[in-house]
Amino acid sequence: MNEPVRVGVVGLGTVGSGVVRLLVGSADHITRHAGRSIVVEKAVVRDLGKPRNLPLAEDRISADIRTISRDESITVAALLVGGLEPARSMAIDLLEHGKDVVTANKALIAEHGPELFDLARRLGRSIAFEAAAAGGIPIVAAIGQCLAANQIESIRGILNGTSNFILSKMEEEGADYAAVLRAAQEAGYAEADPAMDVDGTDAAHKLAILSHLAFGVWVPWADIPRTGIEQIDQGLMAYAAKLGYRIRLVATAARVDGRLAMRVSPALVKVGTPLAETRGAYNAVSIVGDAVGRLFFHGLGAGQMPTASAVVADIIDTVVGRAAITFQATGILDAESPAARIAGVEMPQRHFLRIPVLDRPGVMAEISGILGRHGVSIASLIQHESGTGGPVPLVIMTHHCPPSAVEKALAEIGRSAVVRGGCDCLPVLDDWRPAEPRQEA
Amino acid sequence: MNEPVRVGVVGLGTVGSGVVRLLVGSADHITRHAGRSIVVEKAVVRDLGKPRNLPLAEDRISADIRTISRDESITVAALLVGGLEPARSMAIDLLEHGKDVVTANKALIAEHGPELFDLARRLGRSIAFEAAAAGGIPIVAAIGQCLAANQIESIRGILNGTSNFILSKMEEEGADYAAVLRAAQEAGYAEADPAMDVDGTDAAHKLAILSHLAFGVWVPWADIPRTGIEQIDQGLMAYAAKLGYRIRLVATAARVDGRLAMRVSPALVKVGTPLAETRGAYNAVSIVGDAVGRLFFHGLGAGQMPTASAVVADIIDTVVGRAAITFQATGILDAESPAARIAGVEMPQRHFLRIPVLDRPGVMAEISGILGRHGVSIASLIQHESGTGGPVPLVIMTHHCPPSAVEKALAEIGRSAVVRGGCDCLPVLDDWRPAEPRQEA
Repeated sequence: MNEPVRVGVVGLGTVGSGVVRLLVGSADHITRHAGRSIVVEKAVVRDLGKPRNLPLAEDRISADIRTISRDESITVAALLVGGLEPARSMAIDLLEHGKDVVTANKALIAEHGPELFDLARRLGRSIAFEAAAAGGIPIVAAIGQCLAANQIESIRGILNGTSNFILSKMEEEGADYAAVLRAAQEAGYAEADPAMDVDGTDAAHKLAILSHLAFGVWVPWADIPRTGIEQIDQGLMAYAAKLGYRIRLVATAARVDGRLAMRVSPALVKVGTPLAETRGAYNAVSIVGDAVGRLFFHGLGAGQMPTASAVVADIIDTVVGRAAITFQATGILDAESPAARIAGVEMPQRHFLRIPVLDRPGVMAEISGILGRHGVSIASLIQHESGTGGPVPLVIMTHHCPPSAVEKALAEIGRSAVVRGGCDCLPVLDDWRPAEPRQEA
Repeated sequence: MNEPVRVGVVGLGTVGSGVVRLLVGSADHITRHAGRSIVVEKAVVRDLGKPRNLPLAEDRISADIRTISRDESITVAALLVGGLEPARSMAIDLLEHGKDVVTANKALIAEHGPELFDLARRLGRSIAFEAAAAGGIPIVAAIGQCLAANQIESIRGILNGTSNFILSKMEEEGADYAAVLRAAQEAGYAEADPAMDVDGTDAAHKLAILSHLAFGVWVPWADIPRTGIEQIDQGLMAYAAKLGYRIRLVATAARVDGRLAMRVSPALVKVGTPLAETRGAYNAVSIVGDAVGRLFFHGLGAGQMPTASAVVADIIDTVVGRAAITFQATGILDAESPAARIAGVEMPQRHFLRIPVLDRPGVMAEISGILGRHGVSIASLIQHESGTGGPVPLVIMTHHCPPSAVEKALAEIGRSAVVRGGCDCLPVLDDWRPAEPRQEA
């Protein structure tokens, strides 16, 4: 039997505690897969005073990253703290002291990936980050390794469990956004500060990481156009349902004329299709490759043990040497990969519009006239009488058109005297069809 | 740049041709993922005279496996012929002459896996077989690597594209089994001899392979109880639909009291659940792990390019050295893993029965009496009058009970004077629920 591998765990929050539990609780099983045993040598926490109920002796826990980075017996470090700092400095410290790094920190990879990958490569170390996108779904390995023979055409996914939990709860319970968010926070499903989850930032981080693997370009995540779910209300959900759709926060990256169109936004997805059936904290990813056709993955995108499952798989990959090969021998994590210019790249699609209009003659003619002048044609429409003469929602489903055309039309519509209040615009993703592979005999 | 890696392709049928096309057509892309170029050095075919339209010079094609096995410049061989012989002898010849082997041949792995794995390990070579189960879905990597930290609780899947194509066509078109099979054969979706596809053998091969990876035991595929789809008719489909179900050929392996219950059979799956929505040549696999919870994968399970996608991913894995690590450093393909004894291990489930009975008083009392004596209780029931006095189908949905109890009851029912003809019995798989992971903080 080989010597045990000693691992340092940085951060004993939800994920870090799960990783310690899994490494200790499933030790026999993990030993079989790694060919040697893996032990938690030390852990580092921010607050030493916090009570913990973990299978880890107290004298192995410290508040100083150097107890791990300077310990030469430790070869692998699991970096399981969130945010950019001190995570970035810790990663650099660990790499510079010879540790291979495994992390679940998507913000860190999305923001500092090129810098850290470059440093790791120069030092002959590896960084593994399966847990940084879609939690327990092995999507990083799928794209980076299993689909290596494919030119990827598109990625589409529900990548943020918190916002999916909120949207599907709103749908099931008919409650409004604020009430569901509050309940989710009380139940521990949403952070005290949920901004990055609900405004699309977290999904944009993950989409940037997956796109790097899939398309071989570095995507500055902040360039990805994104809209959050804060504006979604029961009225929008009811109109969507009437048309046969549900609302999900969807992240998309697709090749359009050799460039990349990317977006994170709430979107209408047809009832019965896989994304619409993705509920609660589940994540889902659909990928189209030129050889494999369409692949679909569904699983828990967050939570202690699903995320720990991905982190420990990466630790095993690092221990056996596969992570080093992925990192060093292949060009998929090249720090010098070109930055993608995604501004202005659009995918024509249908749009769902809700426009608060005055209930008076001529309104329809005015709105449809403006849409028409911008090249946006109407596929279907719902309008009810207000009865009171007050504003009523005019709900429109457009034919396929570029998002920018709709934006321009809505800007003009917003200035119209017949409109009272803000307009809503959601893309409609109903092109879920079996994508057949390219070449056949 | 590293030297190119020279690959030999054994078999230029549908999959072999796809592999050559992909290696040539996507060479730049593949080079980036492999860190070096991969070239098809030679191919071996059975029939040299057959015209081929491939990007491969004729003088590189021969009918003798030794042109590959004895060529020292070739380090990787893709073994893409079906059946057991000469595939087994070819695999041995290739391994003994220092080639790493990649194969899509599930019968070969299911039948001779332990022998071949053992030989490869002794010779310091690797065998990769992602394409042997579920075609383009990266399920071998998912179970063998990505879920390595999990104790797997169950695998359930649609693993045979041909039978799924036939069942979903029957459903959509209302045509009978024989007519759909004929049409599938004419369109090239089913083999001239479809026996292994429609009788459950092919799915059993794949289930045996996945179970080896998931549960660490070797399962003799022939021990897996299996029923094919030949007996499925429109009547069964109509009754299933009336109860809210569709019929699919489902392969299942699950831990029951520390042992494995395995089965391949047509089953009722609830409309709206992922397996019921798996149509045509698509495959689907659902896996439950103790840490990750339930993961679901969906993609094309057969066809030239999806299978080639998996084969080329394995070639890349072999070229960069990951396959060797998986094969040599981990215990997951241990030839000495214990053989699973699955006989007599049962998972209680609901059953759907169709019994042709005479339309006369007392029949219900007799049938329900027999079921009751065997501990099978009735959950719901459909019976129509015949009008003619002839036999009518009595359709019963049972509560959960062991399959063997239903079998014994049906044997007795078959001998009853009120029964005219054979009974049908399908398990009902309606326990699709979000499987939550084990430990939470």
